[in-house]
Amino acid sequence: MFTVLHTDPNCAGRVGRLELPHGLVDTPAFLPVGTQGTVKGVTPAQLRDVGAQMLLANTYHLALRPGEDVVEQAGGLNKFMAWDGPLLTDSGGYQVFSLAELNRVDEDGVTFRSHIDGDEIRLTPERSIAIQNALGADVIMAFDDCAPYPAPRDKVEVAVEHTRRWAERSLAAHRREDQVLLGIVQGGIYEDLRRRSAAGITALGFPGYAIGGVSVGESPEEMRTVAATVCPLLPEDRIRYLMGVGEPVDLVDMVVLGVDLFDCVTPTRHARNASLYIEGGLVKIRNQRYRKDFGPLEVGCDCYTCQNFSRAYLRHLYLRGEILASVLGTIHNLTFYQRLTASLRQAVRDGTLLELQRTYRQKIPRDPR
Amino acid sequence: MFTVLHTDPNCAGRVGRLELPHGLVDTPAFLPVGTQGTVKGVTPAQLRDVGAQMLLANTYHLALRPGEDVVEQAGGLNKFMAWDGPLLTDSGGYQVFSLAELNRVDEDGVTFRSHIDGDEIRLTPERSIAIQNALGADVIMAFDDCAPYPAPRDKVEVAVEHTRRWAERSLAAHRREDQVLLGIVQGGIYEDLRRRSAAGITALGFPGYAIGGVSVGESPEEMRTVAATVCPLLPEDRIRYLMGVGEPVDLVDMVVLGVDLFDCVTPTRHARNASLYIEGGLVKIRNQRYRKDFGPLEVGCDCYTCQNFSRAYLRHLYLRGEILASVLGTIHNLTFYQRLTASLRQAVRDGTLLELQRTYRQKIPRDPR
Repeated sequence: MFTVLHTDPNCAGRVGRLELPHGLVDTPAFLPVGTQGTVKGVTPAQLRDVGAQMLLANTYHLALRPGEDVVEQAGGLNKFMAWDGPLLTDSGGYQVFSLAELNRVDEDGVTFRSHIDGDEIRLTPERSIAIQNALGADVIMAFDDCAPYPAPRDKVEVAVEHTRRWAERSLAAHRREDQVLLGIVQGGIYEDLRRRSAAGITALGFPGYAIGGVSVGESPEEMRTVAATVCPLLPEDRIRYLMGVGEPVDLVDMVVLGVDLFDCVTPTRHARNASLYIEGGLVKIRNQRYRKDFGPLEVGCDCYTCQNFSRAYLRHLYLRGEILASVLGTIHNLTFYQRLTASLRQAVRDGTLLELQRTYRQKIPRDPR
Repeated sequence: MFTVLHTDPNCAGRVGRLELPHGLVDTPAFLPVGTQGTVKGVTPAQLRDVGAQMLLANTYHLALRPGEDVVEQAGGLNKFMAWDGPLLTDSGGYQVFSLAELNRVDEDGVTFRSHIDGDEIRLTPERSIAIQNALGADVIMAFDDCAPYPAPRDKVEVAVEHTRRWAERSLAAHRREDQVLLGIVQGGIYEDLRRRSAAGITALGFPGYAIGGVSVGESPEEMRTVAATVCPLLPEDRIRYLMGVGEPVDLVDMVVLGVDLFDCVTPTRHARNASLYIEGGLVKIRNQRYRKDFGPLEVGCDCYTCQNFSRAYLRHLYLRGEILASVLGTIHNLTFYQRLTASLRQAVRDGTLLELQRTYRQKIPRDPR
């Protein structure tokens, strides 16, 4: 399923190939987020054009609307959303803990109220896996307990224990051999709890592992410490997925630590908010300075947006609130991310990943926000 | 510039070819509306795919934002919006009378306040043509006085007189031989005023003529009377453009009367509001009945939307407010309109336009709204 093809001799960075029922994925890979079964603003054809190989969709959202029964009867999520490449669904756990009005976590699962209509819903490992089996993504995730940030140690300790037991039940509930089920390591920013969680989850023998509970409000340094703690504890021959990460600099830093897969709403959300990535940082395209800037958004970029439109036109579209602004911005930002992961793969092959990391921080500073 | 290729022996319907600097247009033709220099939700590549040959953009909007200086310095509207086919700009008159806070119409022109920021702006025939010369569309329009509906006869009479004198001044102000300037006939629903306006405008010898002041609230019967009155008064060898029209049934009826060109926001606006055209009427795709309808929106339609997505998926996208809903709906509705004009052209060639008209009213009833 996953093969490591190259490792950088100077760090933990590696290049691999993920073989899934709907196709191959070159890693390190970034998965655009298609929360509702659509990457906001772009068609599957445009996603192919930007080079995306695999997408993520959210179990929580799709289970609420349109309902996994609709997706299943449509022939599965690939067919429903007309994406013929690999897909990953999350377990729904993160959204339950972040979006829903949370009622009660118990040993067995979570009872919550839908953020859409307030309906009371019960999610357990068995239910999450059943939904994910119905959705039919190539890769699915164990149901986990994602503690918030900050959270007291005893609360995170409970979440780690839930996550381990729920992982075991997720494995037992999984019914489809054509889907890969990944385990999730929790533990917040507590290094010993991360180690405990990694030991407990890897003991279950998943075909691959995710690091969850990051990108929930912790600092970049804390996130780096988490990945640096967990990655060495994961089997080298299994895929490693850092959930919900991140900015371009995060991808660089985390690939150095040995992460293979990422997903994040950042490039697509930024695109809708008129923040566009170029080497050198974020272009706030609504700025007056671009009013008569007739050059492309990013010189040398081969995306549809940069090949056809000027900064002045993009600025105009964003200021007028035109749909096409989000479309063109999303195409560019996703292309930027795909170019970044391609350059990371090349750097690993060349053994120059640490050099890339050193120069990258100057080229693309962290978004101050 | 315009050649009539076929006429239907049983009515005034005709097929023609419009030759413009940016390409050929087969008439009868429907122009998708790109108000702000973008047809809402779709890329130029997608517009080509749906078969659109020519687009309309609005002088009023583009003059306010980003300003015609920006568009001109970008290399003209084609280059600015990355559309390499023919373009038409209106005169701005209609928007001044419908959108702007109108201050004063006088013999010389109109003073109004921008609907965006309240700035006081002066529009005259000379100014409208100068803006349209700067924007650089293949076809531009004389500056006219568009009376509202309903309007008392004396008010419409003044508008007709303004429109004639402003047409003369528009001709005199026009500076670019590569742009075709069309005259506009006004006169509201008063048949004698329509005849007077047609006589006055055609006497000026424009290369083509528009019927303005329709689609402003009058009934379909009143609009039909206007077109039936004016069309026979226009030279047979010149293009005839019915501005702001219309629904599919309107296109059929008006082609029968001898109209060649149409533009309307209906297909694109309907698409954003989840009203999708099929033979048989409008599909209100949000309806519960489509929840598990896994067939295409329209069987036999070759558009990207119908070839790839189900009604159930489209319903889901619209209910979630996803951008892709507007994109896919717009692609389909524009394809539907292009297919309609193609079938009208074929019917003229076959001499069966009146038959098509008879059957069409049952197939696509007027949207009740």
